[in-house]
Amino acid sequence: MGPIGVFDSGMGGLTVLRALHRRLPAEDFLYFGDTARVPYGTKGERTVRAFAEQNAAFLMSRGVKMIVVACNTASAFALAHLQDRLPVPVLGVIEPGVHAALARTRGGVIGVIATRGTINSGRYQELLAREIPASRVLARPCPLLVPLVEEGMIEHEITRQVVAADLGSLQGAGVDTLILGCTHYPLLKDVIGRFMGPDVALVDSAETLAEAAVGLLKERGLNRVGTHAPGKMAFWLSDIPWKFQEVGSRFLGHPIDEVQTVNVNEANWDGHLDLPEVREDNT
Amino acid sequence: MGPIGVFDSGMGGLTVLRALHRRLPAEDFLYFGDTARVPYGTKGERTVRAFAEQNAAFLMSRGVKMIVVACNTASAFALAHLQDRLPVPVLGVIEPGVHAALARTRGGVIGVIATRGTINSGRYQELLAREIPASRVLARPCPLLVPLVEEGMIEHEITRQVVAADLGSLQGAGVDTLILGCTHYPLLKDVIGRFMGPDVALVDSAETLAEAAVGLLKERGLNRVGTHAPGKMAFWLSDIPWKFQEVGSRFLGHPIDEVQTVNVNEANWDGHLDLPEVREDNT
Repeated sequence: MGPIGVFDSGMGGLTVLRALHRRLPAEDFLYFGDTARVPYGTKGERTVRAFAEQNAAFLMSRGVKMIVVACNTASAFALAHLQDRLPVPVLGVIEPGVHAALARTRGGVIGVIATRGTINSGRYQELLAREIPASRVLARPCPLLVPLVEEGMIEHEITRQVVAADLGSLQGAGVDTLILGCTHYPLLKDVIGRFMGPDVALVDSAETLAEAAVGLLKERGLNRVGTHAPGKMAFWLSDIPWKFQEVGSRFLGHPIDEVQTVNVNEANWDGHLDLPEVREDNT
Repeated sequence: MGPIGVFDSGMGGLTVLRALHRRLPAEDFLYFGDTARVPYGTKGERTVRAFAEQNAAFLMSRGVKMIVVACNTASAFALAHLQDRLPVPVLGVIEPGVHAALARTRGGVIGVIATRGTINSGRYQELLAREIPASRVLARPCPLLVPLVEEGMIEHEITRQVVAADLGSLQGAGVDTLILGCTHYPLLKDVIGRFMGPDVALVDSAETLAEAAVGLLKERGLNRVGTHAPGKMAFWLSDIPWKFQEVGSRFLGHPIDEVQTVNVNEANWDGHLDLPEVREDNT
């Protein structure tokens, strides 16, 4: 009955933790943000897989009962890989986003915006294509939105222009549903919503993921029931970023009091899991 | 008589390699770009030091005779640390930039633009203050310029606006010399030059650093003399970034044919150097 582990490349995953905590108030959560190596979205499959593996190993070493991969790029490149190898359930953010989009669309085009890594992985496109024709999917990388959000430039003229440049080709293309395929993007919901117009539904996978997590915990008998006290949240990072308290609290929706750090170079960091096949894959 | 090792957080250091190669055409160079963990400029001192240490250990394991830290943030946080511990000469980019700026200024204000890490380290300010009053130094972080350059958005309206926003407070402040305190910024020389006007000298440390390297090699008897064939350049990266050939060649000024990768998770990667004090410092 350990905590639920949530990892992300940095702080974006706090938007996912927020939704999880709201639905599962009695659960303890352990959040790990790999702020020393952020971003993942500009990096390749092997690198992201290796990082995801280390992050999962760290969470496992702290006794988590489930892992949520709260990063789209890591979900795209490493979810199946982790699910095959870990003894606890592992959930990602892509499948929930796809389900939410399919439930919302009224037969129009589904747009996907994400990091270059997530778009290049083709994962969203592949899952959507199982249910609808490929002609109904338009995927666009938005590489500058992550640094803009991390700088706290939410309602900023430059951000509005980047949104207009990156999403311009989605306007007038019949998009009725837009998947926010990066956990940083929900913070730009207003800017993106104004640009796309009121007829476009913006889909953020956090809520659907949280529902899936509730179901899975129940199914496996891992959920806390009865008269539990409110759960605790612990925050671990591999580097303390500039303005962490301010930016992190904005993501999470309430103040973050205490943060602990993990040294990514600690030799025993990935020594807690017996994942020989994994290592073979990545050398 | 091994190669000269040059490391950077990513590709920006290729602008430094370019200047080194021009002045030292008979030398071999081994470039390492830590593209798996880029950027460094948004990260803290401990993290950047630990990364710099691993990068230096990798170069040492390949038999380099000198190391150039071609990254301002790594120079700011880790240069003295590496110089104290490595058996080969180690050069950074900050001191040469300061010397070049002092040689150029006509008594006005010296501006410094760099990553947030470099500015927060206070290293430029400290070195300049040894020679001129603090009132003659204005330092500004420009956190979005790195992602813009990495996206290849050199002559782009958004880049011009970010430059105007970040450098606006330097206009009309009597700046006659501006230090480009990040190896990505020389690619934006035209945009920055147009914004600051023709009376502001832009200082890029690459040339001054290359001069210093020539002098140091000679002094230590490490330079290649006589009838050597033209030197070779080898490129190692920890991740192959998107559009590497295109973006990297733009930085280097000529085509990059072959690139090798290093897995940053390889256990023996930092095992080649005996740096016990270093590790103590960082855990």
